[in-house]
Amino acid sequence: MNALLKARPASESLTIQTEIVLPNDTNVLGNLFGGKLMAWMDRAAAVAAQRHCRRVVVTASVNNVSFNKPIRLGDVVTLQAKVSRTFTTSMEVFVDVWVEDQQTGRKTKCNEAIYTFVAIDQLGNPIAVPEVIPETEEDHKRFAGALRRKQLALILAGKLKPENATELKALFFPPEVAE
Amino acid sequence: MNALLKARPASESLTIQTEIVLPNDTNVLGNLFGGKLMAWMDRAAAVAAQRHCRRVVVTASVNNVSFNKPIRLGDVVTLQAKVSRTFTTSMEVFVDVWVEDQQTGRKTKCNEAIYTFVAIDQLGNPIAVPEVIPETEEDHKRFAGALRRKQLALILAGKLKPENATELKALFFPPEVAE
Amino acid sequence: MNALLKARPASESLTIQTEIVLPNDTNVLGNLFGGKLMAWMDRAAAVAAQRHCRRVVVTASVNNVSFNKPIRLGDVVTLQAKVSRTFTTSMEVFVDVWVEDQQTGRKTKCNEAIYTFVAIDQLGNPIAVPEVIPETEEDHKRFAGALRRKQLALILAGKLKPENATELKALFFPPEVAE
Amino acid sequence: MNALLKARPASESLTIQTEIVLPNDTNVLGNLFGGKLMAWMDRAAAVAAQRHCRRVVVTASVNNVSFNKPIRLGDVVTLQAKVSRTFTTSMEVFVDVWVEDQQTGRKTKCNEAIYTFVAIDQLGNPIAVPEVIPETEEDHKRFAGALRRKQLALILAGKLKPENATELKALFFPPEVAE
Amino acid sequence: MNALLKARPASESLTIQTEIVLPNDTNVLGNLFGGKLMAWMDRAAAVAAQRHCRRVVVTASVNNVSFNKPIRLGDVVTLQAKVSRTFTTSMEVFVDVWVEDQQTGRKTKCNEAIYTFVAIDQLGNPIAVPEVIPETEEDHKRFAGALRRKQLALILAGKLKPENATELKALFFPPEVAE
Amino acid sequence: MNALLKARPASESLTIQTEIVLPNDTNVLGNLFGGKLMAWMDRAAAVAAQRHCRRVVVTASVNNVSFNKPIRLGDVVTLQAKVSRTFTTSMEVFVDVWVEDQQTGRKTKCNEAIYTFVAIDQLGNPIAVPEVIPETEEDHKRFAGALRRKQLALILAGKLKPENATELKALFFPPEVAE
Repeated sequence: MNALLKARPASESLTIQTEIVLPNDTNVLGNLFGGKLMAWMDRAAAVAAQRHCRRVVVTASVNNVSFNKPIRLGDVVTLQAKVSRTFTTSMEVFVDVWVEDQQTGRKTKCNEAIYTFVAIDQLGNPIAVPEVIPETEEDHKRFAGALRRKQLALILAGKLKPENATELKALFFPPEVAE
Repeated sequence: MNALLKARPASESLTIQTEIVLPNDTNVLGNLFGGKLMAWMDRAAAVAAQRHCRRVVVTASVNNVSFNKPIRLGDVVTLQAKVSRTFTTSMEVFVDVWVEDQQTGRKTKCNEAIYTFVAIDQLGNPIAVPEVIPETEEDHKRFAGALRRKQLALILAGKLKPENATELKALFFPPEVAE
Repeated sequence: MNALLKARPASESLTIQTEIVLPNDTNVLGNLFGGKLMAWMDRAAAVAAQRHCRRVVVTASVNNVSFNKPIRLGDVVTLQAKVSRTFTTSMEVFVDVWVEDQQTGRKTKCNEAIYTFVAIDQLGNPIAVPEVIPETEEDHKRFAGALRRKQLALILAGKLKPENATELKALFFPPEVAE
Repeated sequence: MNALLKARPASESLTIQTEIVLPNDTNVLGNLFGGKLMAWMDRAAAVAAQRHCRRVVVTASVNNVSFNKPIRLGDVVTLQAKVSRTFTTSMEVFVDVWVEDQQTGRKTKCNEAIYTFVAIDQLGNPIAVPEVIPETEEDHKRFAGALRRKQLALILAGKLKPENATELKALFFPPEVAE
Repeated sequence: MNALLKARPASESLTIQTEIVLPNDTNVLGNLFGGKLMAWMDRAAAVAAQRHCRRVVVTASVNNVSFNKPIRLGDVVTLQAKVSRTFTTSMEVFVDVWVEDQQTGRKTKCNEAIYTFVAIDQLGNPIAVPEVIPETEEDHKRFAGALRRKQLALILAGKLKPENATELKALFFPPEVAE
Repeated sequence: MNALLKARPASESLTIQTEIVLPNDTNVLGNLFGGKLMAWMDRAAAVAAQRHCRRVVVTASVNNVSFNKPIRLGDVVTLQAKVSRTFTTSMEVFVDVWVEDQQTGRKTKCNEAIYTFVAIDQLGNPIAVPEVIPETEEDHKRFAGALRRKQLALILAGKLKPENATELKALFFPPEVAE
């Protein structure tokens, strides 16, 4: 087996990024543009995916980005990205975002997003990636949920029939309800 | 009733944006970064939402962004954003992205994403937005699907019980299957 | 005749661009820098010229850019560029700029500029471009005025003798005056 | 008389700016975008105008920008801006652009443009500026030509009747021809 | 004693930043500009200083930045900044820079710089900062060397007589040599 | 001897750069980031070094950058860079920075830094540079001090024994003190 394809611990892909919110990143009320945050998250997630597979990677899809708490001009924002699971040529990456209060130093989680990347070779064709070995409790939880998220994406894209999405069906309509 | 809240035709929010892919927007293989495209889409969608409600708007969530076709250095990219449906203080906006071939002038659709924005007042609190009046066939189709997408988002966020998501239930278990 | 050189309707070159004025685009009074607006106009005009001739284009000259109305931080600016006339290897492009009031949604025209582009081949040499077919009343008016503007530019550059500039002579000395 | 309005030598407004052409400033053939150069010229000209009048200034118009020689990726570009003449609240500024050959160090002039700026007070209203004292031979030549250029601009804007533009009439149709 | 001035462990200020080298960050040979790296280092160091003192900070001085190994277009660069010692109102911050090989994932240290920041209050006046508690072996070594570096800076600025710089004297002329 | 290596007057490398401080260049108190100023200084110094040797140059080290006076949003900043001395393949460049008061036009010196650049050939290897001929009194003073600064850098890097640094020894322990 190709040494490059040997499974790697999730922690090897961990990528930390620190940003300061500048005037051009904010709207007229001084809040960070959602699009700017998505660009930062994409970059952190891409480095995490690249660290895992040691290949050039391209963004394949993004899901479930929600903006719950406004981030303000001058705030220090920390992003953490880690590969949660892989599927042949693709990698699911979680990005968690914290903003910290300058007076108290306390960090508050303000965003979470799930990116999928595909590894490509020099011709731009998809190429196999190593598996990931979950380590922490959260790694395991995210690893387990990845299959369900993949089924949901396939259904929404019309590539999987809902009745065959066993993982997902169980989530939405657990046995006691569906029967 | 507040004149600002009078329903408006979808076409009034239509926003067109043209971009040229520059070197700093691309990875080492010369493909546009997914994060850069998301930032462009967020800006086009924000203008569409702002044109609809004539308020300051903030990104609330993004879903179903998929990147099917690489966009290349030097390509001309056109984005079209239009409000598809509104819910009290929030607006769902579709963004469609085309890339055009310089030799033939032919435009190929390469991306589609769904953004949700919330209108806010000067204090940052959510404020009611006018309804949207769908016009084209596509407007009607997207208007109709918006409720299903909202239910899915609420379930995933744990704010709606699956058995109450009637629209969504029909998706997974269409009449002939569920019975 | 080369199919690439078949005359094309003006509307095929129409390019629409939407921008939001950010802090770095403004001076200490919060007004958009003229230079920033010129850079946006150049980009919109270049895409219009490129769409018309389907070649790489380079800016040859800019004229009559006037800034009548200050554009403010946070304003949404819409640019429209369209090819007005062609001369062998060059294309005249009009760029019209509107700013919109966020409360009323009303768009006010605030700028207009005339750019000239030259189409070039891979070696950087000028190459013939197709003619443009004016469609609207404004297209026809701008098409008609282009020859006069070209003569003025040639005189100012010392490449045409004033007495041979028949179109322009008529401007300064209309029939009832010149006779 | 207000000390701020005491006439100042042209050399006091001289502004020199040095730029390196970076990848994002160039098109697919590696030539500097015209719009980028115009933004640099606007900034140099604005500083020259501000140095002359010691007020906030805004771009009023730009004329006769022509791009004769392609500027390449990596080139060092030098801009020189100097106030050439003033009219009550406005200042005409010449910007000269040179590109230098890295091997020989020889500088070649590649562009020239004429910007007009208006000085404004804190409320954004036009305010009087000091006169300029031409010093070099070129200063005198540009000072003399400024009136003619102003008349041409007024005619093109429909604010002056051609038959009253005595300076300009003499340029296009000198006595021996007009009679 | 002010709770804000309670000594804090060095690790609390640790700031990690990940960057990808983009085309605009490089010279014509594809090497990262030194100035760009210094701007990244300044930002990482400023966040570290701000995390330590929970105040607005301004760069006071930079020393001993050396660029030993070219960093290439597309490289992933990781910066780590940590406060090494404080002096009343100023903080010394070390920034270490690594570049990683995409094929092997191996990180190589390529730069190191020492920044000094001053904490300021809302009026821009210097304000006292908490002491730092060194934890690792390297923390202790850098803490110990900080006094020597401060004396050197004071001598070079003409604010300390060499014969009073006891720490520094020992460096240049260790006992066995000086005697 | 290679004509490219003929000694050149210091004034031939003089590089002037003018910048306006924009919102994105400043912290929350409206002061210019130190890192931004360092990036501007690096660019001015690189052009000066390149003008001297007519080769591609890379930053080798930076020393003694101190920030004494805050530079404010909207300020006009002028940088002057000049080669002070050369050593085989490296060049020492001084950068002086002035900020000007908009009301009075008076320029105040606010920064000074010393950069070292190395000239490289197309393969990235160091290559010999011409000597510099100091002209003004300041040129001579900086030329003379360069050797001392080089010795200090070598000692700090552990590449020179203090007792062999004759120039530097004299600085710290002038004859009347050392004896």
